[in-house]
Amino acid sequence: MTALDGKKVAFLLTNGFEDSELTSPWGAVTEAGAQAVLVSPESGTLTGKKGHEATVDLGVTEASASDYDALVLPGGVVNGDKLRMNEDAVAFTRAFFEAGKPVGVICHGGWILTDADVVRGRTMTSYPSLRTDLRNAGADWVDEEVVVDQGLVSSRTPDDLPAFNAKLVEEIGEGQHEAQTA
Amino acid sequence: MTALDGKKVAFLLTNGFEDSELTSPWGAVTEAGAQAVLVSPESGTLTGKKGHEATVDLGVTEASASDYDALVLPGGVVNGDKLRMNEDAVAFTRAFFEAGKPVGVICHGGWILTDADVVRGRTMTSYPSLRTDLRNAGADWVDEEVVVDQGLVSSRTPDDLPAFNAKLVEEIGEGQHEAQTA
Repeated sequence: MTALDGKKVAFLLTNGFEDSELTSPWGAVTEAGAQAVLVSPESGTLTGKKGHEATVDLGVTEASASDYDALVLPGGVVNGDKLRMNEDAVAFTRAFFEAGKPVGVICHGGWILTDADVVRGRTMTSYPSLRTDLRNAGADWVDEEVVVDQGLVSSRTPDDLPAFNAKLVEEIGEGQHEAQTA
Repeated sequence: MTALDGKKVAFLLTNGFEDSELTSPWGAVTEAGAQAVLVSPESGTLTGKKGHEATVDLGVTEASASDYDALVLPGGVVNGDKLRMNEDAVAFTRAFFEAGKPVGVICHGGWILTDADVVRGRTMTSYPSLRTDLRNAGADWVDEEVVVDQGLVSSRTPDDLPAFNAKLVEEIGEGQHEAQTA
């Protein structure tokens, strides 16, 4: 038996995602035994910034956080900018915080957390361009490879993926965190 | 004599700008008699989102707001995301507010205003994805074609360009605004 056997992890994204920030954590959680599900406001096939194609498993309007053990938000500036404007995506994201479930966020994936208003008092990192936005939304923003704050795992860029994946698998394995809350 | 004879307008941008949000206001202010200058953290040629190429006139490290009568910040998500991370671009932008000089900002061009911390108490609009960021930075964000607040002219998308250009030329023609301040 592997660490995440029986766990279900939602990946929420749209077109313009940072390719490796989908494929690398997806590989890490599935290799650890979890089932990964691609949730999106779009249907059909999504295309990453560098051309990687990924098939959407479920529309975000039909998805419920209660069906998943954790959420991963990949980056990519276009993906991050679009996703935050979708109200269902914002509500789906917020629901993981309300349920105290682990959330992994990397690069430009963090913008939607400001729209979901879930970063107040949380320590986290992101792509550096989001620093002011996350601080203004109440986060304690730090410049580190990976930051873990009660089930919230965050990293800055694709270079941080090895550290991000390790902590992500660890936090999902631990399950719900009381202080991971909206 | 035209409305903006003798005026000098800086356009601050980098690669990935929204093509028409550079070319259309540039055309409007130069047709009105102003001199337009392309200022950038990059040198050489910039390429817009849709392929338009524009030559940089001056590096932002050598540029001083005191040499210009107004500033224009075009959009484009990649341009807006990159520009805000450059400290000289942020300082150059802030100096126009400190001097009470007109500033035109459209679409994703507004992000840098949060890093410059100059939107507190100002009424403005932007591309809708920036709404939360601008509100968290203290702006009174509204969803209108063009918003004029004491020398700060803002619009949402390329569709708003005719209204944006008209107000931009009008505000630059009026000169300094006391309440346009950092």
